[in-house]
Amino acid sequence: MEQVAVETTRQTEWVEITAKVQGLVSAGAITEGLCTVYVPHTTAGVTINENADPTVVSDFLNQINKVIPFDDSYRHGEGNAAAHIKSVLTGPSVSIPIADGRLQLGRWQGIFFCEYDGPRSRRALVQITA
Amino acid sequence: MEQVAVETTRQTEWVEITAKVQGLVSAGAITEGLCTVYVPHTTAGVTINENADPTVVSDFLNQINKVIPFDDSYRHGEGNAAAHIKSVLTGPSVSIPIADGRLQLGRWQGIFFCEYDGPRSRRALVQITA
Amino acid sequence: MEQVAVETTRQTEWVEITAKVQGLVSAGAITEGLCTVYVPHTTAGVTINENADPTVVSDFLNQINKVIPFDDSYRHGEGNAAAHIKSVLTGPSVSIPIADGRLQLGRWQGIFFCEYDGPRSRRALVQITA
Repeated sequence: MEQVAVETTRQTEWVEITAKVQGLVSAGAITEGLCTVYVPHTTAGVTINENADPTVVSDFLNQINKVIPFDDSYRHGEGNAAAHIKSVLTGPSVSIPIADGRLQLGRWQGIFFCEYDGPRSRRALVQITA
Repeated sequence: MEQVAVETTRQTEWVEITAKVQGLVSAGAITEGLCTVYVPHTTAGVTINENADPTVVSDFLNQINKVIPFDDSYRHGEGNAAAHIKSVLTGPSVSIPIADGRLQLGRWQGIFFCEYDGPRSRRALVQITA
Repeated sequence: MEQVAVETTRQTEWVEITAKVQGLVSAGAITEGLCTVYVPHTTAGVTINENADPTVVSDFLNQINKVIPFDDSYRHGEGNAAAHIKSVLTGPSVSIPIADGRLQLGRWQGIFFCEYDGPRSRRALVQITA
């Protein structure tokens, strides 16, 4: 198992980690298999979406922050209940096929660490299986 | 790694691909393991839900189209910002256990390719690991 | 492949299954790999989030029940359309890295079976791959 470190700088923010994950795949011995990216945090997630136009990410963040408001009738005492909810809706893991030693991402796809309660020092775990 | 081709015919639509995915599992040598279905698109996703009553799918689409409206104060220029958001909320990958050479789907479950910006020619990647 | 039985007692409820899943990992021969938890139901899901403060779970349930109301203009005849929608938004599978024979969960993370149409007798499938 490998790790990718992520430093986030805003309360809600997606940080692209595609190159780091592909680097771990390239450094390993498995050329056909599965790459799972896992986030060991409860107020962050991981997803895959367009990495070409940054407004795709900002539109997602604006909309999810509207659907799941920062403040509502939450009972959780730390003030970050909304971040936990966004974390669940985003999901804690994604699995991407590997073929010929490459992540089989689509042309417009990037892997994003999804911060919902930053800024913080974070990490994503990467497990490559055959 | 294998592929399943999908032709979608509407803007938002779920297309069931269970039989095609099970066919790939049956054609392979692995009888115990994991089948991961991965969508290499940024305005589509993959999920598993009821395939018996088609109103389950239409209710999902009607509700997600209400929660994430086609038009809002989005900045992404291609007019499909909502499709990217629905893609993230649905997710890009699912992993299903294989036992005795069969996908271990529940009685009412089918695997659906989830189109949110169709109609288009699409594909899903299928990786089977032991 | 292994199974975890879950008895739910309310209409919407998350039941933690971390100890049972770790027990299956500990009982197996694989010390480095991937643990996939899969829910073979169409009105339930599986996720990973905070297991320390129970208000995190109740805040999630209150908010998702607000965003996806129990009653709306649904057409599905069984009265549980909202449960199917919440099931999709939560997701049917999660995959967690295993290292040194342990699930690599974060400090605050637990694995939750997510009931959206209970009470029912349920199960989660657990597949461990190397």
